[in-house]
Amino acid sequence: MRFKDHHIISMTSFSKDMIDHILETAEKMEPIARGKQKSDLLSGKVLAVLFFEPSTRTRMSFETAMYRLGGNVLNLGSIDASSIAKGETLADTIRVVDSYADAIVLRHPKEGAARLASEFSAIPILNAGDGAGHHPTQTLLDLYTIKRESQLEGLKIALVGDLKYGRTVHSLCYALSLYGAQITMISPRELRMPEEIINDLENRGAKVTELDSIEEAINDVDVLYMTRIQKERFPDPAEFQKVANRLKITPDLLKNVRPELRIMHPLPRVNEIHPEVDKTVHACYFKQAFYGVPVRMALVALVLGAMK
Amino acid sequence: MRFKDHHIISMTSFSKDMIDHILETAEKMEPIARGKQKSDLLSGKVLAVLFFEPSTRTRMSFETAMYRLGGNVLNLGSIDASSIAKGETLADTIRVVDSYADAIVLRHPKEGAARLASEFSAIPILNAGDGAGHHPTQTLLDLYTIKRESQLEGLKIALVGDLKYGRTVHSLCYALSLYGAQITMISPRELRMPEEIINDLENRGAKVTELDSIEEAINDVDVLYMTRIQKERFPDPAEFQKVANRLKITPDLLKNVRPELRIMHPLPRVNEIHPEVDKTVHACYFKQAFYGVPVRMALVALVLGAMK
Amino acid sequence: MRFKDHHIISMTSFSKDMIDHILETAEKMEPIARGKQKSDLLSGKVLAVLFFEPSTRTRMSFETAMYRLGGNVLNLGSIDASSIAKGETLADTIRVVDSYADAIVLRHPKEGAARLASEFSAIPILNAGDGAGHHPTQTLLDLYTIKRESQLEGLKIALVGDLKYGRTVHSLCYALSLYGAQITMISPRELRMPEEIINDLENRGAKVTELDSIEEAINDVDVLYMTRIQKERFPDPAEFQKVANRLKITPDLLKNVRPELRIMHPLPRVNEIHPEVDKTVHACYFKQAFYGVPVRMALVALVLGAMK
Repeated sequence: MRFKDHHIISMTSFSKDMIDHILETAEKMEPIARGKQKSDLLSGKVLAVLFFEPSTRTRMSFETAMYRLGGNVLNLGSIDASSIAKGETLADTIRVVDSYADAIVLRHPKEGAARLASEFSAIPILNAGDGAGHHPTQTLLDLYTIKRESQLEGLKIALVGDLKYGRTVHSLCYALSLYGAQITMISPRELRMPEEIINDLENRGAKVTELDSIEEAINDVDVLYMTRIQKERFPDPAEFQKVANRLKITPDLLKNVRPELRIMHPLPRVNEIHPEVDKTVHACYFKQAFYGVPVRMALVALVLGAMK
Repeated sequence: MRFKDHHIISMTSFSKDMIDHILETAEKMEPIARGKQKSDLLSGKVLAVLFFEPSTRTRMSFETAMYRLGGNVLNLGSIDASSIAKGETLADTIRVVDSYADAIVLRHPKEGAARLASEFSAIPILNAGDGAGHHPTQTLLDLYTIKRESQLEGLKIALVGDLKYGRTVHSLCYALSLYGAQITMISPRELRMPEEIINDLENRGAKVTELDSIEEAINDVDVLYMTRIQKERFPDPAEFQKVANRLKITPDLLKNVRPELRIMHPLPRVNEIHPEVDKTVHACYFKQAFYGVPVRMALVALVLGAMK
Repeated sequence: MRFKDHHIISMTSFSKDMIDHILETAEKMEPIARGKQKSDLLSGKVLAVLFFEPSTRTRMSFETAMYRLGGNVLNLGSIDASSIAKGETLADTIRVVDSYADAIVLRHPKEGAARLASEFSAIPILNAGDGAGHHPTQTLLDLYTIKRESQLEGLKIALVGDLKYGRTVHSLCYALSLYGAQITMISPRELRMPEEIINDLENRGAKVTELDSIEEAINDVDVLYMTRIQKERFPDPAEFQKVANRLKITPDLLKNVRPELRIMHPLPRVNEIHPEVDKTVHACYFKQAFYGVPVRMALVALVLGAMK
């Protein structure tokens, strides 16, 4: 499998085999990610992290990934402190940074930014989120979490919350359709998964159901994937509050569920999951955050050709 | 002595033996801290630094400590650029970061934050100051400075300045009481050391005297420990000016003192010490800043179990 | 040649032999800078970067230089987050940081800051720009670019744009005069090179001509060195626009030039060079940005005594 020198822009360019290969590579990285094993696989290598909007979790896990493998990280720093404030184009920034580093992690508020960057960069671009566009490393770590904590093949999953604007869930659904997942969508009417995505998923072999509440689905799924609902999406704060209260996981809700049920969340959470849930066997979101490290180690090592 | 996997929250949890052990470990670290000797004791290890308020000196000396030992540093970065701005709790931030790193240095404006963090963290928390609470690594570096530049046993020390709000001096006094120090307190009336602390120190075996001016104490002490007096503490700027002028070290004041007298200051100073004093044998505050490095090397190495 | 423990403050302290030695050392660093070769020449070493104003390119290339040689970087971070906001003097900051690191890169808005810092620092100061003062590492990377992409001896160069306030071009001219360059100055009347600098250059053996347009010079030079013209220099926006349009490189302008012509720019550019020019053999500005890495590797290695 050839990942060397390739850009990682979107999930849609990955076959099931490619995804499986990344997840297997991540599995090899896990002991190093946990600090149980040392590695100098990427010693002398430099990863540039260009975050044109903040995303602490994503940035930190990429940085840790690099450090655990003996490499180093070059940080563009805050935007107002950078050349961009002097009017430099993204293309120019990329063409300079690509001569300082071996790969670039790019986070950008504009859809398509990573694709654009990849056209100018002599080194691999790793898309760490571009606006309403893609965020493939989030999807890969979600898949890895499911693989490690539940199972990918024959998965029954419920996606809960903002399924309209939630970039991560779209990308995750596409990937899960490769594994023939049964997907239940649970969202307020205003934030339903777009019809064309549902059709597309069904065409790809996924089974899709739409439900109104978590209760209806909770005994029938392996994974509950929670997402944040943003207040700003609702003109009426009372309406938001009603919805937020309904699409929320409380200890009560978990009283009679199977022990195998896993709850995921891309974090940060606000009120979607009650803190009491953290102590249950179902809580999986902090592990999920950790799994970002071995997955990103795998990706960086693959595109730099340090792993095959 | 077991420090491995322990949190470093406050000085009050340390016995004299524990402090001595940390200071001895710091002494072994000194040649590495000075760059005279190389070490890869912490290679592959990652220290997360979470500064919820700035403290450049403390942060930089922890980072250098890590680099000198071959380790790496993961920086949360500025708060407004982080998940915290999205409403994440400290507990959640800690539970994510603890899976990225091997230990966490935490600086936080709220008293008790380090204690709270330690309840959620699977890895050691090193308290780098929590509001009006504790700042144990500052106290340890103060003690180390006294050990290296004067002597801890039988020490005569004068504390000068804001003894009411100055968190570091409270913590330092407690530690010094373990060594039977004679402590002279010199402060404006408004900023006197709280009565209950003085009583407590005396109960622990320290001898405490209160004086009004540096002149009265200067020929009778081994160490003058200066602190900053904040303008904001005084409703009347003229009153502040009077006090600031009185509790200030000038070259004149040092004309007839013993060569062994040492002047310390946690820095940054504003006007408490005249720049001409820097050249005298008495000036010890820049050395003190440096000593933060071996002390923090010792602490990190101990809690990570790389030293015993 | 002794660079060990020396400060790098201004180009005027360098002889031609010294410059040649730095450029030769940079040439040895190039394969490491390109990531083709590993090095641990500076392992265990710490470079402090103190940027009192942002300069992303300069900072990032110093950081990469350090990482490629196995060293580490201590970043002061943003100024409002630092002790300086508490009123600390530059001298005090330097005296603390010099005990944390092995060398200091200083960028400061005030002319003379690097010189002042060098008077207080126990470790080498590398001036990365001090206001209207000096920026020697920029000049050295410009010289290195000319050496690698054109030739230093007998060079014909045209400097275009703001030659009055453009600090880098003054410094570059002085250095080029050591190599007997023929220098053509092309600038708007308002931004002409100061008369005393021109006289000085001629006294040092450079040949200086002044022209009004790029067209007049383009067939007679080896290098076109473009600079940014700042809008703020012109009271009348229309006048600025006229000037900016005239002193601009377009693909048309390059139709009949010799293939050997090289175009340089310290970046970031705004509109001085049309993006279509990037694809031509003449474009040299992104290479120039890269060359900052081996040059800064050479400088750091030399002042730390890791190279001779």
